[in-house]
Amino acid sequence: MFARIDHIGVAVAEIEPALELYRDSLQLDLAHREVVQEQGVEAVLLDVGENHVELLAPLGDDTPVGKFLAKRGPGVHHVAYEVDDVRAAVADLEAGGAELIDSEPRLGMFGLEVAFVHPESVHGVLTEVVSVA
Amino acid sequence: MFARIDHIGVAVAEIEPALELYRDSLQLDLAHREVVQEQGVEAVLLDVGENHVELLAPLGDDTPVGKFLAKRGPGVHHVAYEVDDVRAAVADLEAGGAELIDSEPRLGMFGLEVAFVHPESVHGVLTEVVSVA
Repeated sequence: MFARIDHIGVAVAEIEPALELYRDSLQLDLAHREVVQEQGVEAVLLDVGENHVELLAPLGDDTPVGKFLAKRGPGVHHVAYEVDDVRAAVADLEAGGAELIDSEPRLGMFGLEVAFVHPESVHGVLTEVVSVA
Repeated sequence: MFARIDHIGVAVAEIEPALELYRDSLQLDLAHREVVQEQGVEAVLLDVGENHVELLAPLGDDTPVGKFLAKRGPGVHHVAYEVDDVRAAVADLEAGGAELIDSEPRLGMFGLEVAFVHPESVHGVLTEVVSVA
């Protein structure tokens, strides 16, 4: 079902210092930068081979990433896996007993279809499936 | 410097229920299982394409993963990147201002050389470099 780890999403207070770290010190290539209003974040995508690191800074305190930062501080926010078909993956996950946050796909970065699985279903890991096809 | 995300390390209280979830519901192939005494964990590696999920259950409360679980509960414990040469990567990271936990590589799963960067240096993400060559 999962082809690869597409990205890890990292919650940070501000984009710029985190971007400098990942781009300049860790030497990852900046691939994309976008404000995703639907998720309440400014997001930066960096390449690591075929995988990515997605830096997420909240657009306000009352957003999911803003609340995450207030509760836990900066760190890994979610893990995203690439799938061929988000709707099929969601159906498979539901059949396997997972509690979906999105039973219908929503639009993520680049307008791609994504869906999130509740971390309670995945031992504390907020898990995303994304189709890049 | 980083070729890909090698794995995400996920801290769990017990291996068996987490292994069942990742193997049976998320349909990942079990690749390896090992007690890594040096890190105080039982570890299970599952394949996701060329990437992996590493489940980590502590051998005791007074281990790094045991303390992580007591403080934060289950969830993503670290992110590991594949590098050609751990010693060269450590030198590059130090030159870039990162605070290394291991200035000399230590042995991880399969006896591979690994080194960890302090999460304070990486916006809250415990970061590992590993050479699989």
